[in-house]
Amino acid sequence: MTAHSNVNVVVLAAGQGKRMYSKLPKVLHRLAGKPLLGHVLDTARQLAPRQLTVVFGHGGDQVRAAFAQAADLTWAHQAEQLGTGHALAQALPFLQGEGTTLMLYGDVPLTRLATLQQLLAASEGGRLGVLTDILDDATGYGRIVRDSSGAVRAIVEQKDCTPEQAAIREMNTGILALPTARLAGWLGELKNDNAQGEYYVTDLIALAVRDGVPIATVHPAHHWEAEGINNKLQLAALERIHQGEVARALLTAGVGLADPARIDVRGTLKHGQDVLIDVNCVFEGEVVLGQGVQIGANCVLKNVTVHDGAEILPFCHLEDAVVGPDSRIGPYARLRPGTRLAEAVHVGNFVEIKQADIGVGSKVNHLSYIGDADVGRGVNIGAGTITCNYDGVNKFRTTIGDNVFIGSNNSLVAPLTLGDGVSTGAGSTLRRSVPAGALAVERGEVVLKEGWQRPIKVAK
Amino acid sequence: MTAHSNVNVVVLAAGQGKRMYSKLPKVLHRLAGKPLLGHVLDTARQLAPRQLTVVFGHGGDQVRAAFAQAADLTWAHQAEQLGTGHALAQALPFLQGEGTTLMLYGDVPLTRLATLQQLLAASEGGRLGVLTDILDDATGYGRIVRDSSGAVRAIVEQKDCTPEQAAIREMNTGILALPTARLAGWLGELKNDNAQGEYYVTDLIALAVRDGVPIATVHPAHHWEAEGINNKLQLAALERIHQGEVARALLTAGVGLADPARIDVRGTLKHGQDVLIDVNCVFEGEVVLGQGVQIGANCVLKNVTVHDGAEILPFCHLEDAVVGPDSRIGPYARLRPGTRLAEAVHVGNFVEIKQADIGVGSKVNHLSYIGDADVGRGVNIGAGTITCNYDGVNKFRTTIGDNVFIGSNNSLVAPLTLGDGVSTGAGSTLRRSVPAGALAVERGEVVLKEGWQRPIKVAK
Amino acid sequence: MTAHSNVNVVVLAAGQGKRMYSKLPKVLHRLAGKPLLGHVLDTARQLAPRQLTVVFGHGGDQVRAAFAQAADLTWAHQAEQLGTGHALAQALPFLQGEGTTLMLYGDVPLTRLATLQQLLAASEGGRLGVLTDILDDATGYGRIVRDSSGAVRAIVEQKDCTPEQAAIREMNTGILALPTARLAGWLGELKNDNAQGEYYVTDLIALAVRDGVPIATVHPAHHWEAEGINNKLQLAALERIHQGEVARALLTAGVGLADPARIDVRGTLKHGQDVLIDVNCVFEGEVVLGQGVQIGANCVLKNVTVHDGAEILPFCHLEDAVVGPDSRIGPYARLRPGTRLAEAVHVGNFVEIKQADIGVGSKVNHLSYIGDADVGRGVNIGAGTITCNYDGVNKFRTTIGDNVFIGSNNSLVAPLTLGDGVSTGAGSTLRRSVPAGALAVERGEVVLKEGWQRPIKVAK
Repeated sequence: MTAHSNVNVVVLAAGQGKRMYSKLPKVLHRLAGKPLLGHVLDTARQLAPRQLTVVFGHGGDQVRAAFAQAADLTWAHQAEQLGTGHALAQALPFLQGEGTTLMLYGDVPLTRLATLQQLLAASEGGRLGVLTDILDDATGYGRIVRDSSGAVRAIVEQKDCTPEQAAIREMNTGILALPTARLAGWLGELKNDNAQGEYYVTDLIALAVRDGVPIATVHPAHHWEAEGINNKLQLAALERIHQGEVARALLTAGVGLADPARIDVRGTLKHGQDVLIDVNCVFEGEVVLGQGVQIGANCVLKNVTVHDGAEILPFCHLEDAVVGPDSRIGPYARLRPGTRLAEAVHVGNFVEIKQADIGVGSKVNHLSYIGDADVGRGVNIGAGTITCNYDGVNKFRTTIGDNVFIGSNNSLVAPLTLGDGVSTGAGSTLRRSVPAGALAVERGEVVLKEGWQRPIKVAK
Repeated sequence: MTAHSNVNVVVLAAGQGKRMYSKLPKVLHRLAGKPLLGHVLDTARQLAPRQLTVVFGHGGDQVRAAFAQAADLTWAHQAEQLGTGHALAQALPFLQGEGTTLMLYGDVPLTRLATLQQLLAASEGGRLGVLTDILDDATGYGRIVRDSSGAVRAIVEQKDCTPEQAAIREMNTGILALPTARLAGWLGELKNDNAQGEYYVTDLIALAVRDGVPIATVHPAHHWEAEGINNKLQLAALERIHQGEVARALLTAGVGLADPARIDVRGTLKHGQDVLIDVNCVFEGEVVLGQGVQIGANCVLKNVTVHDGAEILPFCHLEDAVVGPDSRIGPYARLRPGTRLAEAVHVGNFVEIKQADIGVGSKVNHLSYIGDADVGRGVNIGAGTITCNYDGVNKFRTTIGDNVFIGSNNSLVAPLTLGDGVSTGAGSTLRRSVPAGALAVERGEVVLKEGWQRPIKVAK
Repeated sequence: MTAHSNVNVVVLAAGQGKRMYSKLPKVLHRLAGKPLLGHVLDTARQLAPRQLTVVFGHGGDQVRAAFAQAADLTWAHQAEQLGTGHALAQALPFLQGEGTTLMLYGDVPLTRLATLQQLLAASEGGRLGVLTDILDDATGYGRIVRDSSGAVRAIVEQKDCTPEQAAIREMNTGILALPTARLAGWLGELKNDNAQGEYYVTDLIALAVRDGVPIATVHPAHHWEAEGINNKLQLAALERIHQGEVARALLTAGVGLADPARIDVRGTLKHGQDVLIDVNCVFEGEVVLGQGVQIGANCVLKNVTVHDGAEILPFCHLEDAVVGPDSRIGPYARLRPGTRLAEAVHVGNFVEIKQADIGVGSKVNHLSYIGDADVGRGVNIGAGTITCNYDGVNKFRTTIGDNVFIGSNNSLVAPLTLGDGVSTGAGSTLRRSVPAGALAVERGEVVLKEGWQRPIKVAK
């Protein structure tokens, strides 16, 4: 990463986003689980700029709160929405130095780092850099007008285009790299004598041409890098483009995907060799999949580490959990926060585990709830077993030693310790600890009534 | 809605649909959960026509039975399949007045209301209206032949086309708006002197030209509005087009969709502001999602109301249920018919609820079956609890008061009442009601055998 | 099927597939659940060739082990990777007769049988057949150079193309049908005087032209038939193409699919009339769906037979199981290997069944585990019932007669027999068999403490 110590970044994030039809300010809507503005800031941070300024306005309190943890941000308030030039002017007090001010947009989330680096490189030496794109049909966008030498002369908005200009396919994305030292002067010269009564940053181009400042242009590698979001249709479209790129990157790195159109990664997905991911899985937060890990269809994993050789069967839901090597989970297993499974653990169907450590080779295969528990090695927990960890106000832990065999339909009332090698009988409710090696069985009286007359239909 | 009191609608629905390879008549196959014919009728009804006639034939009993509730339909029987002209003739006895007869097809499900309204408007004043479309390649369809003034002169079928006519891209969709008063005469003139020996409604065009009746044409906004279904490939293709349109409408209205290609709405989906729907959800019947509602991945909801602020986690299956505001459901929760959850109710994993009211703030978080029950406020139902509502022939209700705490693995044998503030011990089977404030525990004898010799492998 | 008794098939399968980034040899990666090489071999077998030779090299032990059951394969070892000509030469000792040697590739999985048959037909009479394709842009591929009469004169590799040749759109797929009798001579003449120092089978074309052997060309019906796999992107792309073809074939045959882009068939799917499959289902191995069967959203079926009229609700996971006619399964049911359900059986939510026969009309509707059991007709198994089939080392069977009614939360400790018509009480743990017609209830003492003081919060 090259640090850009002479670069200021300004991100415009003051817009309301009326067409989102939302209480949330536009830049807080999420793409791949992260606010739009977060995408822009994270890319900008990779430039290691001198300063990172966010111009906020609509829903400003919400926006600032959402990024309250980010100590590297400077906040500039735009009280009225008087155009992009006005927005940039609010950041002016924080823009220093002889270098470049890179202007980004909080609702243009997917611009790639390499594209911004190219734009900054092109704008070195006091040039004004414009990120432009070539579209099949640029109708509606500001056109890039060049002279016969190819030098940019102006950006002409749609409504002002001559027929010749309207045919131009090169358009202004709005992303600019501006000579910082010129900004104070130029911004002071901007006029709002247009229909909207706004100050447009685009007008800086004319000032640069007037002042003989060379204008450099760079294109993004993909059209979507410059696409902004004004409504949920555009948000969904960019979400799918982004997920498609993520899928492509995973495949290129050797991850097997049953369907690249049916995977969602909302965070980071690290992986070893020979990982296979079946259809329709969702990954959130930080997920790590070790070598040879297989993820079945329709799984949801959030902040999970799955170690080498483990297999997650279909319909599993894992959150803040660790799955040990060669373990086998599911189908229909739910691992809740604080679940840590050692090597070769089996967790089966309709099993919920939370805040529990399960030891090497232990099995919880059927219809059980294991919460707030420490389970040893080689333990077999029978179907329908429940750790009764809650008395209505307190939570207590259950401790189960190594090689314990728990019969079916047991209720283990915590706090409770089952020593190593304990066996329990089916259907037992155990309220006291059991010493190592013992069998504990709760038994009631079995009443047998031969020739039993079954209930008959009650008239209603 | 403008009522069209001088419009008769005739829907041809007599075809068999051999290539559907089905026992079901073609028009009863479902798109978005509704029979094809139902789509056509529902759109026609929005025109508020004078009369709505369905021409039935193949599988007529099934078709009539499927729409037995629809009192507004007139049924015309086409005993033999002798062509579209013959089909229309069967409806003739029911067509009255000086207005227009709109001819639709039971296997062309997605024609939009606005398109039909335009066609009717164009055919006012005694014109014959034809819905035509411009295709890149109209091969196989009847071509619209116009004279030098642009007036329609004929519809020429593929096999009769001159090379010049074959190059025409404007085709006949088959949807017609006909001057009702002329129909009796014209239909009587139709001939079946063609290879198939059938009477074609298309031949009415020539009669109109002969009689100096002006012919108006209207195009649908989308090609798919005029596409018919003859096999399951076409049915699946239109299903996806329809679902894509539904997704687009939801996004436009501000609903967040993680993947517009992975949502299925088979009925109506009403929504408040800031609703988020994750991938791969299915909505059937009448679904209402309040403001801020979040639906997790892979949920199936049928006839469900989810109130403001509620969250449905992944893998839930809800049917004929109401979820109260700020409730949290799932993952893996099944709410069956008759489930009514009040505010801030939590229903967790592997929980089934049916015919039950659950009060404010109550929790059923794990592995439980609550059926035929009235549960108060602030109740905590332990993991593995089952309401034993069925004795083999009768179903009984369970009544649970406010602030009850039910231990894990309880069996509550209905009819049964647990008074307010009751507590129950883990593993209890309760066959009698418990007064308010009491603790009830069923306990067996716990046998402890130290140094227990475990079972050994039995030779087989 | 026409047997091709004078055809030898040679499949090149020696490549490593570095860009797969995998420990697995390239030809063992799976498409639709079957190794790439398996697809090629299965298609080749349909030709009923005289001999089927696989040239192996990288990961040869793994490759041979994966096909150890295939007695019809001849294995030729290519110790060094010296080009396609060298690979073919390794198979030479096994190529006999006057007929044709068809050369295929273990990483080109989707060539259709009809295409190969056309190529073999075109190469009869001693011709050399080349499968060529016409691409919009053939850059990178060997071009097919023809003389003015249209006869193939050469295959020219990209780097050797003149500008005119570079514009040729007809390319060499690599699949060849070679005159077997010529091979020994021709292969001996191949030279490796190229940059890579390899022997290329493409050079046989020049030898054929020199020797006056006519060259015939055939095109595949689809581009993907000739596409090879070098990385996971290509593997995923061909997987989706294949699944799309499978979906198209199912639809054409009358199966209803809610979304053709969301079905995965990894094996064979046989079906009766009027089968409906909802979104996002996965079928593995041999699956048979009878007439009128409905499969809900998000189901996974592996080696399953579902008889006429049965309905599988969403979120089911079935493996090595039989579902009887008119049965209703799920949602969230897991049928494990050895499950055999008779007619009209109901299996409900959060139920696991394995190695069990369930009789006509019996119901296991809620939260149960039935393993190693024989269940009669008309049985109702209450919610939360568990067959305790495992004592830690042995598995035992549970036998349940006809018309048995099992209360909720029962634990049935096997070996155990419940005779016909037995009833059991809720919450019972039964360790002994119960005679026909009897009621068995296990009861503990119910302690009732009025005015119970609930636990208070413990300071931590």
